[in-house]
Amino acid sequence: MNEFELIARYFGSSHHGADVLLGVGDDAAVLDVPAGYKLVAAVDTIVEGIHFPLNSNAGDIAWRALAVNLSDIAAMGAIPKWFTLSLCIPQVDESWLKEFAESLNHLAAQFNVQLVGGDTVKGPLNISVQIMGLVEQDQWLTRSGAKAGDLVYVSGAPGEAAGGLQLLLHPELQISQGEQVHSSYLINRFLKPQPRVELGRLLRPFANACMDVSDGLLGDLRKLCAASECGAMLRLEQLPRSASLAAIFDEDRSEQLMLCGGDDYELLFTVAPSNISQVTQAASSCAVPCTCIGMINQSNELRDVKCFRNNHEVHVSVNGFDHFA
Amino acid sequence: MNEFELIARYFGSSHHGADVLLGVGDDAAVLDVPAGYKLVAAVDTIVEGIHFPLNSNAGDIAWRALAVNLSDIAAMGAIPKWFTLSLCIPQVDESWLKEFAESLNHLAAQFNVQLVGGDTVKGPLNISVQIMGLVEQDQWLTRSGAKAGDLVYVSGAPGEAAGGLQLLLHPELQISQGEQVHSSYLINRFLKPQPRVELGRLLRPFANACMDVSDGLLGDLRKLCAASECGAMLRLEQLPRSASLAAIFDEDRSEQLMLCGGDDYELLFTVAPSNISQVTQAASSCAVPCTCIGMINQSNELRDVKCFRNNHEVHVSVNGFDHFA
Repeated sequence: MNEFELIARYFGSSHHGADVLLGVGDDAAVLDVPAGYKLVAAVDTIVEGIHFPLNSNAGDIAWRALAVNLSDIAAMGAIPKWFTLSLCIPQVDESWLKEFAESLNHLAAQFNVQLVGGDTVKGPLNISVQIMGLVEQDQWLTRSGAKAGDLVYVSGAPGEAAGGLQLLLHPELQISQGEQVHSSYLINRFLKPQPRVELGRLLRPFANACMDVSDGLLGDLRKLCAASECGAMLRLEQLPRSASLAAIFDEDRSEQLMLCGGDDYELLFTVAPSNISQVTQAASSCAVPCTCIGMINQSNELRDVKCFRNNHEVHVSVNGFDHFA
Repeated sequence: MNEFELIARYFGSSHHGADVLLGVGDDAAVLDVPAGYKLVAAVDTIVEGIHFPLNSNAGDIAWRALAVNLSDIAAMGAIPKWFTLSLCIPQVDESWLKEFAESLNHLAAQFNVQLVGGDTVKGPLNISVQIMGLVEQDQWLTRSGAKAGDLVYVSGAPGEAAGGLQLLLHPELQISQGEQVHSSYLINRFLKPQPRVELGRLLRPFANACMDVSDGLLGDLRKLCAASECGAMLRLEQLPRSASLAAIFDEDRSEQLMLCGGDDYELLFTVAPSNISQVTQAASSCAVPCTCIGMINQSNELRDVKCFRNNHEVHVSVNGFDHFA
């Protein structure tokens, strides 16, 4: 099977919606952006040994490659529509490709996004997805819209994915029979991130700022503050505690995972206090818990995020994930 | 310098046109597709040792990464507008990055395309560019539009880039003083592909089919025929002969490079015979020679490209470039 047959066989044949005027197989795809909408575009690349452990299975890799991109679209409050795939693989392994394509197609169907182009090259495993979406004119979410007095919210339970990764990387950890269910849950939270697309859409009309949490809650909140030119006060006792994290890790380790673990792909957003009830409604409507974890305050010192526990300031030193640190 | 500073420093600060509503630095870019236009999107990835020799300089790598994508947009007859960059590098080397960014920015400025997003990750060198462009409604070029009786044209002089690569890979080849100018020319043709964007725009109103030649003229013509469900007759004596190729390689080798060498990034297109004068006009208007090299004929056997030399059929066995062959 050569490169061209390979692309056609696994990635070329899916049915296209009416908004795909020309799909996989030509030099480029041609896509229809309807009037009243703006185009939203992002790229995220995952590499073996950095974003997922060596010898991860193909289905999990495909899921992650697309999910992290869907998460970027979610953070903008946009509707995911199309994506391109650049797949760099060391050799053609049909069973690997089949598993990869099945998982990719499954997640794509779940979010109604269409693969419209791709490139398959030979080399060390590296998967780059570029995603395109649509958002209503002048109504996208950004990192830079937070205002003093805004409440800071996070969706889901940050730290669970990082806990799952610890369990994957340290099979020597002793897990009791009773803890197995929590261990499996955490590992699945790492392997199968759930992009918060529906939540992003619901938040779009009223949130002031939004981003996805991928490099650790604390570090990402600092980035949001830097972009918004403000500071924030984080109330550690308000952080959503995961029962599964608590079952396996002690309190300090759980909190560290919550604050500094990566790979959450939850939404971190800020809203004016007058919009609290809208957050509650959005969270319940898409069945994703959202927790108020602090407040935005004016700050002369950019990125200044102060952590408090029961009104006492505490120092948290660890930064978010940085590939080149 | 961490990952975030790195992106900001080298790739984050360029001025954006009015069509970039939100640029580098948020979770995604927001872009304006004007009414009457469709979005054109493609991705191409280049990997060290496959698409460029080991130890290539950073400027040449950046040029190639963007140029091959611009070439895809050219093949559609579209206007390149925006791109995202996924840069996977083994370590942070500031002088490498500076050279990479300068070359990328130079080519981007030349074609008026804007970097709107990126991802920088650590790993084996791999550069993926996703390009977006615009094309007038219902007026893009495809591979699949060739009709029986169409004349087949190619721009430029295919084989020159492949000749340049041979010279790069075989420094032991004896090049005489008089051949130096040709050698340098061919190497530059490999290192700095010139995307035929202007030509693509000029061909758009009247060409029936178009693609870019990246994997070898003969193999790519087969792909065009397969997509158009037709065959073609290629007249070898009509192939545009490069003086520089002829100065360094013998006739057989030159012809093999012309037919089967990769990395040309020229346009291969078909037009109805009534449009010959329009081709001449387009070629002269953008100063890119276009040569008629054959004809499209009806064929029951797909991809059937027959080669003739002075009306005698000849067999050419070598296929185009295939990463996994």
